[in-house]
Amino acid sequence: MSGTFFVVGVGPGDPELLTLKAARVIGAAPVVAWFAKAGRAGHAHRTACGMIAPAAERLAFDYPFTTEIDAGSEHYRTEMAAFYDVCAGHCAQRLESGRDIALLCEGDPFFYGSAMYLFDRLGPRFPTDIVPGITGMSGCWSRAMLPMAHGDDTFIVLPGTLDEDTLSRRLLGDHAAVVMKLGRNMPKVRAALDRAGRADRAVCVVQGTMAGERIMPLCEVNGAEIPYFAMVLVPGRAASR
Amino acid sequence: MSGTFFVVGVGPGDPELLTLKAARVIGAAPVVAWFAKAGRAGHAHRTACGMIAPAAERLAFDYPFTTEIDAGSEHYRTEMAAFYDVCAGHCAQRLESGRDIALLCEGDPFFYGSAMYLFDRLGPRFPTDIVPGITGMSGCWSRAMLPMAHGDDTFIVLPGTLDEDTLSRRLLGDHAAVVMKLGRNMPKVRAALDRAGRADRAVCVVQGTMAGERIMPLCEVNGAEIPYFAMVLVPGRAASR
Repeated sequence: MSGTFFVVGVGPGDPELLTLKAARVIGAAPVVAWFAKAGRAGHAHRTACGMIAPAAERLAFDYPFTTEIDAGSEHYRTEMAAFYDVCAGHCAQRLESGRDIALLCEGDPFFYGSAMYLFDRLGPRFPTDIVPGITGMSGCWSRAMLPMAHGDDTFIVLPGTLDEDTLSRRLLGDHAAVVMKLGRNMPKVRAALDRAGRADRAVCVVQGTMAGERIMPLCEVNGAEIPYFAMVLVPGRAASR
Repeated sequence: MSGTFFVVGVGPGDPELLTLKAARVIGAAPVVAWFAKAGRAGHAHRTACGMIAPAAERLAFDYPFTTEIDAGSEHYRTEMAAFYDVCAGHCAQRLESGRDIALLCEGDPFFYGSAMYLFDRLGPRFPTDIVPGITGMSGCWSRAMLPMAHGDDTFIVLPGTLDEDTLSRRLLGDHAAVVMKLGRNMPKVRAALDRAGRADRAVCVVQGTMAGERIMPLCEVNGAEIPYFAMVLVPGRAASR
């Protein structure tokens, strides 16, 4: 009997935003794994570490890259595929011996999460359960007190890595929008919001729900350094009725 | 000292998908409120009822409309505004007397939730805390085991109430997409997915995470009756690396 592969969303960062199911699954897991930048504790681990059983085996999977690089390059793709193969191998070994694994994921596992690459490799071979999590964006707009999508609004999430023309074209209109992956893309994102006429209601959130949280109207960001894992929120149609 | 207005997301339907914070806030609230169709228990209440303190006052706000009607009509807008005014009045009375209220919301409060209309009315007057919830769509794609958005994917949520041309134009491409508000819009949504060439990987989920859950590839839906509160999921670029 093989173990079960639990893919567990731990939410945006506040440990109280784990679900009851996530807390139960993590507390019961004999093996707990997570991704992290080399030398870092990892956001997902930091969020959920209070739930892990003292006797559980801990597997930290350190990403091979530590800075923003071109995710479309052949070098990146090859290295990352090899990395995920190794991680899947470590997991498979435990699952084959009958031990359950809880893989901790920031936010929601199937919404821009690295966990999907292990799910692709392990899902077809082992019993699998996906535990959804609060997305980072839900955490951010709740803290910013910014109602986002109403009634018949369209809602769109754009990576800040898109070029400025594409960004500004897709931001045009009155739909609700989230722009992720800021960092060095921030000046371009800001220009695109200006061109689309969406800058005035936009809000920038850094470290939403966590210590160090910053919530700023876009017009007050000015030259402030904005990290990669931050987001700009643009609410949809005004709610008032 | 007035009470605090807690706007609490209860997630997609499985009571174990409440957050630890939602469970704490609901359990401690002297007043618990929720929206429901007239004569129904209400999804949000059904999901969270096990958490409510026995002595808590319960306020069920029954929507004035029970069927799909034109949300753009003047009649609908006027009636709904009056309804939300009355609900806000009931809440304000309790808050003014120093009692906290937990307003239960399906999914995430600021993502297509009626709670936003009470937030607009009460947020400026009373201390307010927004507790994010697992969205219905996260619940659905987790149960369907369907990784949705990867890397630099764009992600879009479309209401099925849009016209077929707009729907098919916005579905075009390789981004991840969710179409909500199905019901009588289903044949149109299906035609739009076909025209955009997105039908083959689309999955329809009814009652995701709840009793009565149904998960079907779109091609197997055929003439099946699909309720309004169901969704079609179209995953982004293939994940495999």
